[in-house]
Amino acid sequence: MTAPLHEARTAGSGRSLPDTQQGIRRRNLARVMHTVSAEGPLSRAAVASHIGLTRAAVSTLVDELLRSGLLEELGPARPGRVGRPGSALAVSGHGPAGVGAEVGVDHLAACVVDLRGEVRARAVRHGTNRGRSPEAVTEELTALIREVVAEAGQQGLRPAGLGVAVPGLIARDGRTVVRAPNLDWHDIDLSALLPPEFPLTVDNEANLGGLAELWLAEGVPSDFLHVSAEIGIGAAVVVDGRLLRGTRGFAGELGHVPVEPDGPACPCGGRGCLEQYAGEEAVLRAAGLEPGEDRVGLLAARAAEGDRAVRRALHDAGAALGVAVTGAVNLLDPRTVVLGGALAGLAPWLLPSLEAELARRTAGPACPVSVSRLGPEGPLLGAAHSVVRAVLDDPASVAEGA
Amino acid sequence: MTAPLHEARTAGSGRSLPDTQQGIRRRNLARVMHTVSAEGPLSRAAVASHIGLTRAAVSTLVDELLRSGLLEELGPARPGRVGRPGSALAVSGHGPAGVGAEVGVDHLAACVVDLRGEVRARAVRHGTNRGRSPEAVTEELTALIREVVAEAGQQGLRPAGLGVAVPGLIARDGRTVVRAPNLDWHDIDLSALLPPEFPLTVDNEANLGGLAELWLAEGVPSDFLHVSAEIGIGAAVVVDGRLLRGTRGFAGELGHVPVEPDGPACPCGGRGCLEQYAGEEAVLRAAGLEPGEDRVGLLAARAAEGDRAVRRALHDAGAALGVAVTGAVNLLDPRTVVLGGALAGLAPWLLPSLEAELARRTAGPACPVSVSRLGPEGPLLGAAHSVVRAVLDDPASVAEGA
Repeated sequence: MTAPLHEARTAGSGRSLPDTQQGIRRRNLARVMHTVSAEGPLSRAAVASHIGLTRAAVSTLVDELLRSGLLEELGPARPGRVGRPGSALAVSGHGPAGVGAEVGVDHLAACVVDLRGEVRARAVRHGTNRGRSPEAVTEELTALIREVVAEAGQQGLRPAGLGVAVPGLIARDGRTVVRAPNLDWHDIDLSALLPPEFPLTVDNEANLGGLAELWLAEGVPSDFLHVSAEIGIGAAVVVDGRLLRGTRGFAGELGHVPVEPDGPACPCGGRGCLEQYAGEEAVLRAAGLEPGEDRVGLLAARAAEGDRAVRRALHDAGAALGVAVTGAVNLLDPRTVVLGGALAGLAPWLLPSLEAELARRTAGPACPVSVSRLGPEGPLLGAAHSVVRAVLDDPASVAEGA
Repeated sequence: MTAPLHEARTAGSGRSLPDTQQGIRRRNLARVMHTVSAEGPLSRAAVASHIGLTRAAVSTLVDELLRSGLLEELGPARPGRVGRPGSALAVSGHGPAGVGAEVGVDHLAACVVDLRGEVRARAVRHGTNRGRSPEAVTEELTALIREVVAEAGQQGLRPAGLGVAVPGLIARDGRTVVRAPNLDWHDIDLSALLPPEFPLTVDNEANLGGLAELWLAEGVPSDFLHVSAEIGIGAAVVVDGRLLRGTRGFAGELGHVPVEPDGPACPCGGRGCLEQYAGEEAVLRAAGLEPGEDRVGLLAARAAEGDRAVRRALHDAGAALGVAVTGAVNLLDPRTVVLGGALAGLAPWLLPSLEAELARRTAGPACPVSVSRLGPEGPLLGAAHSVVRAVLDDPASVAEGA
C-alpha cells in the first residue's frame, strides 16, 4: 500500500519525514510553523525555547519561512526595552491558503482559509444533487471554487491545494469516490473532474467534520469519537490526535453498526443498521413528515414547537444512537463523544435518550457526550484546513513549489 | 496524562525518542537491533544499507551493541572471499531476556523469552483462581516466575523486565488492575505484589494476545482486529502496527458491545452484550453443560463428537460474534479479523455462522476472518515479548542499566 498524500497531511508536525539532514530540516521548519501558529505572535527566542533548538538554528529556519512568505514579522516587540528588540513573528495572512469544497446532498459550498485559519472567502449554492451526474455537479462546484479563489486572490492569497468533502466512501488515494449512496455515485475519480491546477485531496465528510473538531474546537481532547450526519450517519475516530482511516479508508461507518440484529434491511446489505433508526429518512418517516429541502431545519422547528410525533421520533433515534455509541465506546475507549454535523442542530431532542442509553449500559461513569459548535460547517472547514495543515506540517513543500 | 511505560515499549523502532543527538543515537541503535532481529544474521555493510546510514556510523553503533551483549558476532562470513571478511551479526541468545507471566482464571504461567524470540524456560500451574485473594495468587505466580528466571539464569539470561497478562481492565499506568470480574479483583496495584527486581508492565490478556499475533505470527498485516476469549470476550485493535489502547487503557471491550439491545442483563451494567451470547458461560449454559475445568476442551471434544446441543450453542455464539464483529469492522475497517485465545480452538464450529453473519451484513466482499495459531499461548508470549520489544525499541536503556 502506498502512503496516501492526505495521510501525511494529517500526521502532525511532519513526524513522518525521514531522519536525513533534509528530513530533519523540514521537520524543524514544521515545528517552527506549528509553534508560531499555536502560540504566536512569538519572538525568535520564544520559538527557540518552545521547540528546544538554539536561537541560531531557529533564526535560520525563520529566515527561510519569512522568505517563502509563510511567516511575517509584526515589527519590533517591546520597544521600551534596552538592547536589540526582538521582532514578533506571526503566521502570514497572505500567500499560501487552503481551498475547501463540499458536495452535499442538497448543497455545494467552497471557501478559502488562510494559514492563520481565517475564512477569507466563501460561497454556497442550495439545490439537490441527488440523481445529478458527477460531471454536472463538479462543473457547478468548479465555478464556485473559481469564484472563491478569485476573491481570495484579490486579498493576496494563492491556493496551496484543494480539499473536498463528499458524503461517501473515499479510497485511500484521496481522489476516488468509491461509493456515495445518496448521490448514487460509484467509482468516480474526482481528480479528472475538478480544477487541475490545485493539488487535490478528497475525503469523507464525517472524517473532515471530525478533523475540523480536532483542529478548530476549543477544549477538544486528542481522543474522541465524532458522530455526525448529513443524510447518512458517519463517525470519525480520532486517536492520539490522528484520524483512524482504516485499511481501505472506510473506517467510521457507525451508520452501519447493527443495533437490532433482525431489524429492517439496509441498502448497505445489512439488517437493523443504525441508519435504519437514526438516519434522516428513518426519522422523517417515524415523524410522519415528507422528505424535502432543509429537513433538519424542519425537524428542529417542529420539535421546538412541541410536535409530539417529531419529539418521539428524535427520542427513538437518540436511543438507537446510544446503543451504537455504547458499542463504539466499549471498543475505542474515547475521552468524549462529540455530536456534529446535522446532529448538532437536533441535539436538544437526541441527547437525553442517547445519554440515558449510554449511562444504563455502562458500569462506571459513562463517556461524556458534547455537541459540536461547528455543526454543519465542520466538513467544509475541515476540507480547507486539511490543506492549511499540510502546509504547516511540511512548509518546505510550499516554499519549494513557490 | 503521563506517557505510560508500556506505550513506549510497543511504539516500534524508538520512534518516540526526541530529536536530540542522544535521541537520534538511541533511535539508530534501535534501528540496528530491529534490522538484525528481523533480517539477521547480517554483515555491518548489509545493516548499513538496510537502514541508510554510513558503514562507519553503523560500526560505531554495532560496537556499542556488542559491548552491551545485545548483539553477537557469528565469526567471519564468506571465508572464501578475498579481503577482510565481514563478520555476521546476530541478536544475542544470552544476556537480556523478557519474562512473561499470565494470571488466568484457571491457571498461572510464566516463561522466559530471549532477544531472538525463543522460549528458554516455561512453567504452568493449573487450578482455579476464582475467589482467591490477589496476595495468594501473586505469591504463587512469584514462585513460578522465580523458577523460570532461575532456569534461564543457568543459560546465561538475565531478565530485562516482567510482563504480566491479566483478564481484566488495566490502567494506563501499566500496574493497576482496575477490574477483573472473573477474578473478583478491583483496584489492585500488582507492582506491590510481584518481584520488585524486574521492571513491571501489566496488560490486558486480549491486548497481549493481539500483540503476540502482530509480533510473532507470519503474514499478519499491520491493521487487524484480534478477537479472543478466556472466560470473557476481548479484542485487540491493531492500527498501523500499534495497539489502540484507549483513553483509560480500556479499548477492545468487544464483549460488551450490545448485540441485542433488549437482551439479558450483563454484570457490566449493560443489556444484551456479546458476552451474554458468546461468552464461555453463556455457551456452556446453552449447551446444557456444567462449568468445570478445561471448559473449552470439553466444548471442542463434544462438538467434534457431533453433540447437537453443543454445536447449536457454538453456532449461535458464532452468529452473535458475527453481529458484533460487523459493527467493529464498520467502525475500524481492519484488513483482517483474527480469532485467538480460546476461540481459536472452537473455530471450526464458530466460524461458519460468524462468517455468514459478516457476509450477509456487508455489501462488498466481507472482511476475511482467520484463526490464530498461537491460540491460548498468545497472552503469555505477548507478555514476554513486550519486554523483548522494549529492549529492541530502546537498546540503550538496557546497555546503560547493565
